[in-house]
Amino acid sequence: MTPSDLTPHIERGLADLRDLVTLESVSAQGRMLPETAAFVTRLLEAEGFTVCEYPGEVAPVLVAEAGEGPATLLIYNHYDVQPEDPLELWDTPPFALTERDGRLYGRGASDDKGEFASRLAAVRAVRERHGGRLPLRVRWLIEGEEEVGSPSVERFVEKHAEELRADGCWWEFGSIDPEGRPVMYLGLKGIMCVELRCRVADSDLHSSLGAVVDNPLYRLARAVASLRDETGRVTIPGFHDDVREPSPADREAVARVPGDRESVRGTYGVTRPLATGAAYHERLNLHSVINVNGWGGGYQGEGSKTVLPAAGFVKLDFRLVPDQDPARVLALLRSHLDAQGLGDVEIVELEAHQKPARADADHPFVRACVEAAREAHGTDPIVNPSSGGSGPMHPFGAFLGVPCVALGIGNVGERVHAPNENILREHFGKGVAFGAALLERLGRGLG
Amino acid sequence: MTPSDLTPHIERGLADLRDLVTLESVSAQGRMLPETAAFVTRLLEAEGFTVCEYPGEVAPVLVAEAGEGPATLLIYNHYDVQPEDPLELWDTPPFALTERDGRLYGRGASDDKGEFASRLAAVRAVRERHGGRLPLRVRWLIEGEEEVGSPSVERFVEKHAEELRADGCWWEFGSIDPEGRPVMYLGLKGIMCVELRCRVADSDLHSSLGAVVDNPLYRLARAVASLRDETGRVTIPGFHDDVREPSPADREAVARVPGDRESVRGTYGVTRPLATGAAYHERLNLHSVINVNGWGGGYQGEGSKTVLPAAGFVKLDFRLVPDQDPARVLALLRSHLDAQGLGDVEIVELEAHQKPARADADHPFVRACVEAAREAHGTDPIVNPSSGGSGPMHPFGAFLGVPCVALGIGNVGERVHAPNENILREHFGKGVAFGAALLERLGRGLG
Repeated sequence: MTPSDLTPHIERGLADLRDLVTLESVSAQGRMLPETAAFVTRLLEAEGFTVCEYPGEVAPVLVAEAGEGPATLLIYNHYDVQPEDPLELWDTPPFALTERDGRLYGRGASDDKGEFASRLAAVRAVRERHGGRLPLRVRWLIEGEEEVGSPSVERFVEKHAEELRADGCWWEFGSIDPEGRPVMYLGLKGIMCVELRCRVADSDLHSSLGAVVDNPLYRLARAVASLRDETGRVTIPGFHDDVREPSPADREAVARVPGDRESVRGTYGVTRPLATGAAYHERLNLHSVINVNGWGGGYQGEGSKTVLPAAGFVKLDFRLVPDQDPARVLALLRSHLDAQGLGDVEIVELEAHQKPARADADHPFVRACVEAAREAHGTDPIVNPSSGGSGPMHPFGAFLGVPCVALGIGNVGERVHAPNENILREHFGKGVAFGAALLERLGRGLG
Repeated sequence: MTPSDLTPHIERGLADLRDLVTLESVSAQGRMLPETAAFVTRLLEAEGFTVCEYPGEVAPVLVAEAGEGPATLLIYNHYDVQPEDPLELWDTPPFALTERDGRLYGRGASDDKGEFASRLAAVRAVRERHGGRLPLRVRWLIEGEEEVGSPSVERFVEKHAEELRADGCWWEFGSIDPEGRPVMYLGLKGIMCVELRCRVADSDLHSSLGAVVDNPLYRLARAVASLRDETGRVTIPGFHDDVREPSPADREAVARVPGDRESVRGTYGVTRPLATGAAYHERLNLHSVINVNGWGGGYQGEGSKTVLPAAGFVKLDFRLVPDQDPARVLALLRSHLDAQGLGDVEIVELEAHQKPARADADHPFVRACVEAAREAHGTDPIVNPSSGGSGPMHPFGAFLGVPCVALGIGNVGERVHAPNENILREHFGKGVAFGAALLERLGRGLG
């Protein structure tokens, strides 16, 4: 397919994206999820898909199917987004797709509405070329709970394995590096999100009583400080026991990932890197990590207030690697805090756990993705054994036996999960081209 | 003076307090300070005081004088209050004095508008008894910056020493214990309030980057955890070097302070006391302490958000004892953080420092206060060498050479600096009676 064949489909896809961004589908806050599912359903039905809607824990799960051919492609996306706050740091309204200097800004522009819209545009282009039919079977799983840990997906994939069976799964994200090379990921870290809470009194006290009443924020600080060391290595006893050492092949693969460390540092003004040079991608892609997402408690206004807070909280996420198990890590965290004399620090699980997953780079579907990427981008993709991010990839390997390949339209400065989330217009077009190339290639069989 | 002589003055004083509480004189936020100073001036002028208003750093400083006699009493109060937040935890509006079950609720009901109003009512009663004149000289220093660390007072007292010269100073607060015994304080801790800040990037990042970018909240947690130990003892090297060991007399005095530990624990639902039994008052009144007042950073909303925060902050206060110097403690804190590898954690001073102070229990003015308290309360006062709280007491000893005695109307459940601040109506009346007794006694000379 020539680039000019795709132009109208790219424009149509951007129009879809503009509509999708206006839908404030924040799953953490339960906003506009059924409405967004219904809109996505209409978009898919218009392209000949049969769509089934199933109830999820907080949002509907959609399974769509269309086409017939020698291969079956499963696509996984999500229609929910992260909360938009802090609102004051957005340069333009988060729920209005806004173009500036070749970039399109908005919550979900990249994660994951931009990915979905570019793939739908690719489906349209291929259907048009084939006289209104798809030369392969496309199955599409689209959920609305990804940003709250996909609590429904593990059980859903197990239960609906027959409907979802495929030769391979195109995962919901991916990126294109500043040199125009697509970056492929064959795995994801697991994740566990918790809140630590501590309370020492019914109400705030005058801070002079700090001499005789313990301080909940001190106790939480001690808890946080005990979880890792200066280098970022997790120090919870037993945490590393189940870590499968990265294979030499995985190590070689991450060593071949070109360094975007400096561009990341420059883009975000990072002042305190934990890894540079060769260690960067090994840590980002293959090591587990604990992160503090936020904390609050006591007086946060202007100036000072000499108060002893009654209570405080800390939000944490744990990013896990094969074969760490979130349930076991949760138990280790509890034992660790107890052993530190912090038995009164409560652990509240914030969302469903996700197990880590990694696919085999030699699978024919992975090779087909590499070839389609080379064709669409005119350059070899960078193949990364795992992303630093997380998602519900584990059940796809466990219950469907398919490799998941993440290839998409993200960029180094995309600010996913943060204010001013964006994509490059050019990358959206490249994403449509890759999708079309992958569908055409699979339409000729997996070989 | 008989109790019935005082009744109309008590009611008039409560009416003054009701008016004062409606004035939202929050110094940390610069709210309604000149208006409140003007209202206080009118109240004093109505009782024959000559009032001079001087500019302070954030609010006017008032010096009032009235009367003539064998002794001069200096009274110190403040007309500013703490911020009212968290507003949702108030059972009634913070800026409307509301009576329930013998208690009067409102911001400043105790600290310090209730104290001021009860003393003004005592002045009225004594004036009336003496045919409209006071039998002693009363000098009154009333500032509006106490809740932000009294940045003007040290220099003001030094500069205006001649205008403020007196035989003794009646300090702005004090309390009455559940058995009806007045609790006197002869000293205050020093205080230093700071904010620790850490920033690692220009904007929030996706938390997967926590594998390769350090976390500002972890760094702040490590800083906080390094400042004290499990028992509450400060662990900054050199911090204790300048602490003057409490004298045997001070230790005996605090040992004689009856235990209100259990009532404090019960009233506030305290679950984690740092000291019980004999250690309670020794720590509360004679030991220095670090307290975490509040912290913020990253995502604080519902559920989770997998973000690596760009920055965070922690607010701290240090309560110091003689002869610790806030400026030296600040320098020690900086050196300590640097030595911990936390040179990037910024220290921001939030308000002026205050040095600790303690008076001599044998001074004739202290004895006069003890006797007036015995007369008004019908029981011996509890004499405490120091409060656990802070205030600008140091310059009164250093530049005026007078002892400061805190005696007032607070109660164990007063919730000063917190939601539902309150006084007992009965204590307000006792405060008026004590004030009248002290003025009468000093009107007969210090003996």
